[in-house]
Amino acid sequence: MTRFASAQSIAHDIRSGKRSAASTMQAVLNTITQHDSAIHSVTHLFAQQAMQQAHAVDAMVARKEPLPPLAGVPFGVKDLFDIQGHVTTAGSIVLRNTPPAAQDAALVARLRTAGAIPVATLNMDEFAYGFATDNAHYGITRNPHDTQRMAGGSSGGSAAAVAAGFLPFTLGTDTNGSIRVPASLCGVWGLKPTLGRLPRAGAYPFSASLDVVGHFTGTLEDLRNIFYIMADTPAEPEPQDLRVACLGGWFAQNLSPALAAAISRVCAHLGLTGTTELPQTPTARAASFVITASEGGTLHLPRLRAAAEDYDPATRDRLLAGAMLPASTYVQAQRFRRWFREQVHAAFEQVDVLIAPSVMCEAPLLDNPTIMVGGKPASARANLGLYTQPLSLPGLPVLCLPLSNTGTLPLGLQLVAAPGREAALFSLARKLEQAGLAGRYPHNTQQAA
Amino acid sequence: MTRFASAQSIAHDIRSGKRSAASTMQAVLNTITQHDSAIHSVTHLFAQQAMQQAHAVDAMVARKEPLPPLAGVPFGVKDLFDIQGHVTTAGSIVLRNTPPAAQDAALVARLRTAGAIPVATLNMDEFAYGFATDNAHYGITRNPHDTQRMAGGSSGGSAAAVAAGFLPFTLGTDTNGSIRVPASLCGVWGLKPTLGRLPRAGAYPFSASLDVVGHFTGTLEDLRNIFYIMADTPAEPEPQDLRVACLGGWFAQNLSPALAAAISRVCAHLGLTGTTELPQTPTARAASFVITASEGGTLHLPRLRAAAEDYDPATRDRLLAGAMLPASTYVQAQRFRRWFREQVHAAFEQVDVLIAPSVMCEAPLLDNPTIMVGGKPASARANLGLYTQPLSLPGLPVLCLPLSNTGTLPLGLQLVAAPGREAALFSLARKLEQAGLAGRYPHNTQQAA
Repeated sequence: MTRFASAQSIAHDIRSGKRSAASTMQAVLNTITQHDSAIHSVTHLFAQQAMQQAHAVDAMVARKEPLPPLAGVPFGVKDLFDIQGHVTTAGSIVLRNTPPAAQDAALVARLRTAGAIPVATLNMDEFAYGFATDNAHYGITRNPHDTQRMAGGSSGGSAAAVAAGFLPFTLGTDTNGSIRVPASLCGVWGLKPTLGRLPRAGAYPFSASLDVVGHFTGTLEDLRNIFYIMADTPAEPEPQDLRVACLGGWFAQNLSPALAAAISRVCAHLGLTGTTELPQTPTARAASFVITASEGGTLHLPRLRAAAEDYDPATRDRLLAGAMLPASTYVQAQRFRRWFREQVHAAFEQVDVLIAPSVMCEAPLLDNPTIMVGGKPASARANLGLYTQPLSLPGLPVLCLPLSNTGTLPLGLQLVAAPGREAALFSLARKLEQAGLAGRYPHNTQQAA
Repeated sequence: MTRFASAQSIAHDIRSGKRSAASTMQAVLNTITQHDSAIHSVTHLFAQQAMQQAHAVDAMVARKEPLPPLAGVPFGVKDLFDIQGHVTTAGSIVLRNTPPAAQDAALVARLRTAGAIPVATLNMDEFAYGFATDNAHYGITRNPHDTQRMAGGSSGGSAAAVAAGFLPFTLGTDTNGSIRVPASLCGVWGLKPTLGRLPRAGAYPFSASLDVVGHFTGTLEDLRNIFYIMADTPAEPEPQDLRVACLGGWFAQNLSPALAAAISRVCAHLGLTGTTELPQTPTARAASFVITASEGGTLHLPRLRAAAEDYDPATRDRLLAGAMLPASTYVQAQRFRRWFREQVHAAFEQVDVLIAPSVMCEAPLLDNPTIMVGGKPASARANLGLYTQPLSLPGLPVLCLPLSNTGTLPLGLQLVAAPGREAALFSLARKLEQAGLAGRYPHNTQQAA
């Protein structure tokens, strides 16, 4: 197995007897043990249990039993998904004394049923509140393509572990951009499915109105196949002859030159001229933030009252501020959300897929964590979600693809569809991949470590 | 036409030619003009338009055209339903300079299609915020059965107009009890349908999460028939052999002796023993209040900033306080609501209809507006919703019936069903009416003025 093997090829090799599940798992564990110290994506390894489960798969192979689709495929989870028998920390020490999870998170259980084996929990911003995966308790996750740079967050460990070739796929969550931002900065595929399409049970919550669970992969095929496995539905036919439009206005500002050029190439390839605008995008971003802050603050208020000093200071202050927002601000945000959702649904009567940047530039340097917004340096932690937050508000499915040949570090693109229309996203992404416009960064490591 | 004629009998008399729509309408207008000064239920009369529409019905009768079911039947609306061409005040002077309504409220439009004729707007607490119909701008609506007493609110004008025999039916709204409280105090039938079952368009809002539109009638037959006309669906078959339970705990405390005795008679007739309890009822009441205060405050905040002095002082202070609640309080209330709704739905797996008091006692005196809560006098305006507010939270349909032979002023009973199960409520109410346990107060005026 090469270090960057896909879930599909791993499953194929095990099924065909080309390689055992145990040797695959041992290789994965060895790689992580040897190389993760440089990027710090992993917070816990289930080495022994994972090896046991791999041996069980090999025993099935030996008995020629029918194998489920992901039999023996290793995966990792953001450190907020319950793994039976393990304490879920959600990136915090606040939960360290809670009892071990009595059962797997719903998504983990579905993946186990499909034969996949959880190997590791992965680093994140505390309680998923941030875009940096700079965690006061568990350390910083570094970008595998330049360890002086951010991996992005909050699912930074999950994106980095795939980007580094440790694991073929990982789970993350996305409330304001926590899958899309690190997928973009690390150059891997990420999917934030439609709000409500995948079960959130057993994933530590942040904002009930906005939380979505999803995943990172190294290949588009994995992204698609694993999505339907997690959704527990057969793969849908992919629509052709899609109507595509590029989002302008808010989504065309603050772009780095390399990203603007890459988007132009995509638009030229698709024959797109002009742009579409969503109304009141800055308010949509603000509303998404207000809802997150209020619901997150409410969730944590009892613990903050009891043990504020255990929180990461950056998280604590944001949660306290969120809990103290006036109710009218929150209610207005929810009212705006309903209006905005109607506007967005109306836009999707004219178009199947909208295109937008994921993040305005390459991964910021860890010792200078700023990005340029309106011509001025601004906090990366607070502003990396500039383009992801407005699209969180209406609960749309978003596929984040790694742009090819950008001549710089990874840059990502959001493909956005109407609720439930993930199939349209896979279809357009395939078209762009086939045209050489999308693929895991960098292209020369896609086939070998 | 007798003053207390039902919508059904009015429609029958017009259809059969026994009486013209114009003479019916003239009689209604005369009665209101002569008698409303004593109770002050009406805020505006559409005398000319109503007479025109009555003549149009008579023309249809003369031409032997098919008549819609409520042809020529007069009705009134709480002063927050849009009537085309009329400024909707919502019981306030704050809206006096807004333009006249461009079209009828959805419910009014459906009733017009069914042949009914809007005759009057009816008094209410300002912006529906209160249980007293004590309005700083438009005056107090008095209880027709004792003008020294409250009619209840906020749809007090609507309940009083039916109780006084001015109109066979009227529209109201119920967010925390604004149909059920005045129906109970005035001794008429009231229905708060399932949240979302009837269209709210064109009814001035208060709380998007809780507002329900409904109606008051003098007879159960009218309550049922007009409900299905407003729902724009055929009448549903009424289930028999209902499983009925009486709510205990919170709903068994603070009852006046007359009400406790009346409920005992109902339970004895139905053969009920023991009681059912809903969990955390006081929290449900608080959550309903918090959601209402926050959403109402948010709705009015821009106007409060611009023209606070135009508001009724009691309303103004409540709205401002609501807007300033912390977001965490509101979010917690909504989270509790989801939990409580699940608990209530689970309870309805064991039972079809729950019985609860509407208000703990007869209508309070206007010059001593207090009721006894926990053995101490408490503000009637703030506490008349003790039993109605917890049942608002989960959006259940509630029929408020006037209890018979209580030996005191009117007292009401709530019949509560699972969402969408209004038919079960009509069925049980009919059974109680046939047993002489329910009917418009007082019984000897039911057939004649």
